[in-house]
Amino acid sequence: MTIQKDNAGSVTLVLFSGELDKAMAAFIIATSAASMGMKVNIFFTFWGLNILKKDKARFAGFNIMQRMMNFMNFGTARKLAMTKMNMAGAGPAMLKMMMGQKKVPTLPAFIKMAHEMGVKFYPCEMSMKVMGLTKEDFIDECSEVIGAVSYLSEAKDSNVNLFI
Amino acid sequence: MTIQKDNAGSVTLVLFSGELDKAMAAFIIATSAASMGMKVNIFFTFWGLNILKKDKARFAGFNIMQRMMNFMNFGTARKLAMTKMNMAGAGPAMLKMMMGQKKVPTLPAFIKMAHEMGVKFYPCEMSMKVMGLTKEDFIDECSEVIGAVSYLSEAKDSNVNLFI
Amino acid sequence: MTIQKDNAGSVTLVLFSGELDKAMAAFIIATSAASMGMKVNIFFTFWGLNILKKDKARFAGFNIMQRMMNFMNFGTARKLAMTKMNMAGAGPAMLKMMMGQKKVPTLPAFIKMAHEMGVKFYPCEMSMKVMGLTKEDFIDECSEVIGAVSYLSEAKDSNVNLFI
Repeated sequence: MTIQKDNAGSVTLVLFSGELDKAMAAFIIATSAASMGMKVNIFFTFWGLNILKKDKARFAGFNIMQRMMNFMNFGTARKLAMTKMNMAGAGPAMLKMMMGQKKVPTLPAFIKMAHEMGVKFYPCEMSMKVMGLTKEDFIDECSEVIGAVSYLSEAKDSNVNLFI
Repeated sequence: MTIQKDNAGSVTLVLFSGELDKAMAAFIIATSAASMGMKVNIFFTFWGLNILKKDKARFAGFNIMQRMMNFMNFGTARKLAMTKMNMAGAGPAMLKMMMGQKKVPTLPAFIKMAHEMGVKFYPCEMSMKVMGLTKEDFIDECSEVIGAVSYLSEAKDSNVNLFI
Repeated sequence: MTIQKDNAGSVTLVLFSGELDKAMAAFIIATSAASMGMKVNIFFTFWGLNILKKDKARFAGFNIMQRMMNFMNFGTARKLAMTKMNMAGAGPAMLKMMMGQKKVPTLPAFIKMAHEMGVKFYPCEMSMKVMGLTKEDFIDECSEVIGAVSYLSEAKDSNVNLFI
């Protein structure tokens, strides 16, 4: 747990995208900011919720439509597609292999590290409702479920706001 | 029309994307901010201009290239594709159905609501020129056409800036 | 070189995307801000690094994986794909033709102009390492290679932060 320095500032990210490359970018920024003593909050919404899903939560959802949505909306932090070129999974596999060779942590390692550094993960209430997900579908590192108003209360006093 | 509270802050969004899911995210943030008394401006640029198009404006454009661009650049607020999975329109239809079941407003309803709450919609001058669109192609809720300099004048004093 | 006005504020962009349309949006914002006397920094990361590549740098990389990544991760500022519709290059060609007709500068012209106006281009250290790129692969307009911490030090005091 990093001690937050006074006046170190804060970063609030909206993580809308569920692709591996964008998630990596978000966690690189989040952990770098936390290492500088900045307060960091990530608001996970829409496809970004996939990043917080437990591996077994893949077919969650109360009705058939939601189950289909979650199926298509595939992936957890271990298995995300990429913005460009997926090619039957070859793109993400290559990125992971190259990051491994360069000693860049994997996404699940980044999530754990960010959590230990004090980065907060907030799932978006409305997206969860639409997708039929509950707090139980998410990893334990997750903080409480919040809505857009709570996100904005935090964001309006942040030094850096990004939509990823 | 919401009364803007002093010091409630402001939100300025660049809406570059024309997909339904990103547009929904933008309007959820915009209406939530307006409900908190924040000043909200949305600058619509590139594909985001589709969101402001009247239903019948689909084949606007002064020459054949622009007409093709507008045709490919398909959709109005009623008929947008999604970032992921389109599957002959099944993705957006599912999202709409699920949002309907959960009583989340549709995009045209969100646009109307945002306008009534005082959110301002500014179409980007340069994108309009490139795409051969004029102010007449857009819905009546639209404010005046502005350029990037006007956008930045607003953005530099905003609490929350996002590129969506 | 534009003289920076006191209190004109600053803009810091993360350019993650390598598509032509997003790159154009970033450079329109950057040059507009510079014309207002604002300080402008662009941090190029992931696919955004393509925009900085020299034309001949296309197959850079120290090993076969990196070479494949760079091949797929195709393009330099002269040859970028678009977010939507690529259609064997017809989309970007159309956009370029239409922008040409409307006297909007091309991306290489925008890069040169932005540089002359004092906009700084910083390539992201970690992305370069993963992709096996070195400073020599980039155009001369490029400033020094920096990491996420340096980006955040700049971003936290900026008026406008965007992730594109």
